[in-house]
Amino acid sequence: MKGDPILTAHQTIGQIDRSNNARVLLVGAGPGDPELITLKGLAAIRAADCIVYDRLVSPALLKSAKPGCELIFVGKENHHHTLPQDEINALLARKAGEHTLVVRLKGGDPFVFGRGLEEFLYLHERNISCAVIPGVTSAIAGPAAAGIPVTHRGVSRAFHVYTAHDRNDALADLDFGSMRDDAATYVFLMGLSLLPEIVARLLAAGKAPTTPVAVVSQATLPDQRCVRGTLADIAGAVAEAGLVAPAVIVVGAVADAGSAPR
Amino acid sequence: MKGDPILTAHQTIGQIDRSNNARVLLVGAGPGDPELITLKGLAAIRAADCIVYDRLVSPALLKSAKPGCELIFVGKENHHHTLPQDEINALLARKAGEHTLVVRLKGGDPFVFGRGLEEFLYLHERNISCAVIPGVTSAIAGPAAAGIPVTHRGVSRAFHVYTAHDRNDALADLDFGSMRDDAATYVFLMGLSLLPEIVARLLAAGKAPTTPVAVVSQATLPDQRCVRGTLADIAGAVAEAGLVAPAVIVVGAVADAGSAPR
Repeated sequence: MKGDPILTAHQTIGQIDRSNNARVLLVGAGPGDPELITLKGLAAIRAADCIVYDRLVSPALLKSAKPGCELIFVGKENHHHTLPQDEINALLARKAGEHTLVVRLKGGDPFVFGRGLEEFLYLHERNISCAVIPGVTSAIAGPAAAGIPVTHRGVSRAFHVYTAHDRNDALADLDFGSMRDDAATYVFLMGLSLLPEIVARLLAAGKAPTTPVAVVSQATLPDQRCVRGTLADIAGAVAEAGLVAPAVIVVGAVADAGSAPR
Repeated sequence: MKGDPILTAHQTIGQIDRSNNARVLLVGAGPGDPELITLKGLAAIRAADCIVYDRLVSPALLKSAKPGCELIFVGKENHHHTLPQDEINALLARKAGEHTLVVRLKGGDPFVFGRGLEEFLYLHERNISCAVIPGVTSAIAGPAAAGIPVTHRGVSRAFHVYTAHDRNDALADLDFGSMRDDAATYVFLMGLSLLPEIVARLLAAGKAPTTPVAVVSQATLPDQRCVRGTLADIAGAVAEAGLVAPAVIVVGAVADAGSAPR
């Protein structure tokens, strides 16, 4: 990206951290497709001496790291974190002492259920400068990749985003009673295995069985799949289709509003 | 960006439009800082023969257009659109007939109150192939730029995003009664001039006067400013500070959770 006035790595990192000395950058990698990272995020990866990354980060992005960059994986398939959060925090602080620039690379956006502020505050309390580079969240881009907008004039005037699971991988304690607005979109992240429970709770809260629902699996990746239905039939349809995580669940009229272009 | 395997313009546009022949790309420009556009978004700008853009799009991005690219501005300061939406739709269809690739460049994300689906469906109905490249939304990145996460474990387990105004620039018909969850974050876009009304409605709905509120103006841009307070005092503080649009309003405990790093 040399030669482009808006793209030099130095400018990029200097701009996001106005103190010009961030030792740790919390970077959103975007929803899956490596080209949906921001220019600033890619510049951070290229400048990093150490990258601490999660399981939903594209391998293509790690290939952009400079030679000798230390790559540390802190997530695996069947758990949300291999390392407990406090160990990740301590790892970031330790690596910040060893390197000039550490990048903490997270799927989606660092502040959308990414525990970014926990890391930020841990480092801040230890006088380790830290800045955040936002990312495209799968809460919005996941549905969009299937042609579904989270808002649409005359159909949806608000959207609401939830993480489906609690820290024990059970259904989170969500206020399903507040989800009755038919002119709003309700998005659930990390909820594929909890879909039958989510559907049951929405129906119990009075949501109509005819409410459109879409589930987008592996959004923005080559294996993307989308299953559409209603609260009455989506759980069965998704089970039958054998969708795999990660998946985003979209509830509301917009799930039926697009023309299902792919 | 030549030579980088994940960055060629052809690959980029081919990937987002799986039919490989999109004539119009709806592209999110991100929250303000031009480096917060995605790689795919920038590749689209560079490949475009014509760019139809809004007022919140950074001039730096337009400089990346190729020589001879037709640039058409369809927004101005004091209105949400210079052209009515139906004229923008017709313009896009007409330009798609004149050019190989038209980019419709919008601030933030095309599907977050961006009327993206209206344009998509209009083109789709006329057999003009169209695809969407998502962007970083100011609903999330705006607060983040001021150190405020929309979610934070133990503080906010959900976030809710609203457009503050209706099509007549009056306060939108929002369900303020549903905004009483103290463990959630409520984000209002395009609401600076409506802040006193929003505050009054939230208080009338039973929200505590001590609820933290932050208003981030010109988020991610050099002139970014953030004013923090509570429902009891934020309207006065913002008026006194003389914040200017665009601004994002964040209501909830997270507005006080960060360490206000800048």
